[in-house]
Amino acid sequence: MSTPPPPRHLGFIGLGIMGQPMATNLMSAGHRLTVWNRTPSKANALVERGATLADSPADVAAAQPEVIFLNVTNTPDVEAILFGDQGLAAKASPGLIVVDHSTINPVETQRFAQRLQDDHQITFLDAPVSGGDIGAQNGTLSIMVGGDESVFNQVRPLLEVLGKNVTYAGPSGMGQACKACSQLAVSGALLGVVEALALAKKMGLDSSTMIDVVSSGAGGSWQLANLGPKITAGDHAPGFFIDYLRKDLAIAADTAQQRDLPLALLELAERLFAEASQDGAGQLGTQAIARLYEKHGGFTFAKSQSAKS
Amino acid sequence: MSTPPPPRHLGFIGLGIMGQPMATNLMSAGHRLTVWNRTPSKANALVERGATLADSPADVAAAQPEVIFLNVTNTPDVEAILFGDQGLAAKASPGLIVVDHSTINPVETQRFAQRLQDDHQITFLDAPVSGGDIGAQNGTLSIMVGGDESVFNQVRPLLEVLGKNVTYAGPSGMGQACKACSQLAVSGALLGVVEALALAKKMGLDSSTMIDVVSSGAGGSWQLANLGPKITAGDHAPGFFIDYLRKDLAIAADTAQQRDLPLALLELAERLFAEASQDGAGQLGTQAIARLYEKHGGFTFAKSQSAKS
Repeated sequence: MSTPPPPRHLGFIGLGIMGQPMATNLMSAGHRLTVWNRTPSKANALVERGATLADSPADVAAAQPEVIFLNVTNTPDVEAILFGDQGLAAKASPGLIVVDHSTINPVETQRFAQRLQDDHQITFLDAPVSGGDIGAQNGTLSIMVGGDESVFNQVRPLLEVLGKNVTYAGPSGMGQACKACSQLAVSGALLGVVEALALAKKMGLDSSTMIDVVSSGAGGSWQLANLGPKITAGDHAPGFFIDYLRKDLAIAADTAQQRDLPLALLELAERLFAEASQDGAGQLGTQAIARLYEKHGGFTFAKSQSAKS
Repeated sequence: MSTPPPPRHLGFIGLGIMGQPMATNLMSAGHRLTVWNRTPSKANALVERGATLADSPADVAAAQPEVIFLNVTNTPDVEAILFGDQGLAAKASPGLIVVDHSTINPVETQRFAQRLQDDHQITFLDAPVSGGDIGAQNGTLSIMVGGDESVFNQVRPLLEVLGKNVTYAGPSGMGQACKACSQLAVSGALLGVVEALALAKKMGLDSSTMIDVVSSGAGGSWQLANLGPKITAGDHAPGFFIDYLRKDLAIAADTAQQRDLPLALLELAERLFAEASQDGAGQLGTQAIARLYEKHGGFTFAKSQSAKS
């Protein structure tokens, strides 16, 4: 951890469930904020604390903050905020740094970064996060950052206000690539846990015993230790929504396809979570995929393939 | 850990890569052994240390040890050792305890236990292990035990000579069920790691960075932490053979099928590891599944299905 950074003027665009607490933490650390959100009312709490509400992303840039943070939902959102009619590039001064905390496509990220650098002398860092709204509130997010390393080092003290594990992942796009890889590891481990628990139940094996034994060995994972007990208890409350995981897996799938890399587990995970979403579980936690296995009495390739059509 | 058990007369059947060091550890703890192995020469080292070599499983039983341990390869092996012409049931005295460290089918295990109890007054505990030959040598295996709990408590001090984590998993078959569940969790996590590393490589993301970042979050697993670096280094040396995992997955699949439970991830894992084995990787470590992804430039459902036929 570095010494606290001197107060700066910062921009923050996207004040949703993640962005709002992140912006709040930056203000609590003493920084001055100019903010924008598609639904302006979500800025109220920040404005009451002294933030300036801008009329557009372009107006955030026109206020000349040193760094603008973004946290929105998907790739087209980021593109519009950067390059739209009222996008920030329209009124940004050369030398601006943009830090994108959204989870979006790594290849598109690289294009955005190149275009911002070439046409506007703006440095773009991709900095997706994990750790959920709780991590955003507590400033304990994991942040994986792609882009110019010297600029990363420059903004690192600000990122350390937002997160606990702040890692430089490599050139532009590598933060997003890292996030996509993480969701692949998450999905594989989770599906393994779900099928292990389904088999345990069918066999009459006590789930807690199985979780304890398997956790202590080569089958151990964060997913097993944290979501295994929730599945056993029928607790489907979201840590992370199934629909958010689906969005992230779609990014991983698009990226893999752009690189001509078929991935069978990823395909399977997409199909299963799509079916769970169609079944009404999209706003439940990822562990609710177990509910689908129970409902259908398991899953086969054939079933998951028919589910896609 | 209990106080050291008093010396006993024990039987040990199956002196392979696992059984031999396990039997040795029991002798080192002061117990007297009567042993049998299909290939008698594998008993030489134990006989030199004072073990008695029997002519058959029946002869092991005839020597009247208090407990007979088994560690062989598959379900028919166990069945023959128990119930064959020269099987131990033929000459066992009522009250014998048989502890089966083999990894075999949980449902068959329950049938064996019932038959031994009903026809021979023999108590059968299923006690599959994990931790590999190193764990067997060092007495640090994980042992998950199904069967009569009071008999488990009786033999627990002996099991603690063999392993570090000795857990009672429930009634007969639950040790084997636990092992099957473990291999499902292992397979899901491993396939997630393999696909994450394949995507990282295609994207130009540094593997070690990805492993570090993902390990610290919800994608973390034993497989990622331990096999991720080996995959990155191209180190395919076996901790656990692909062909052994295939055998265990076949047991899980048979068990699931016996309980009418289709499991899509398990199906996928079986197909991928079968293809790896056909590709000559059966005697490599499970992490060598990554080699197959590299060779074929990834994997699709379609490819893995054609591989099955």
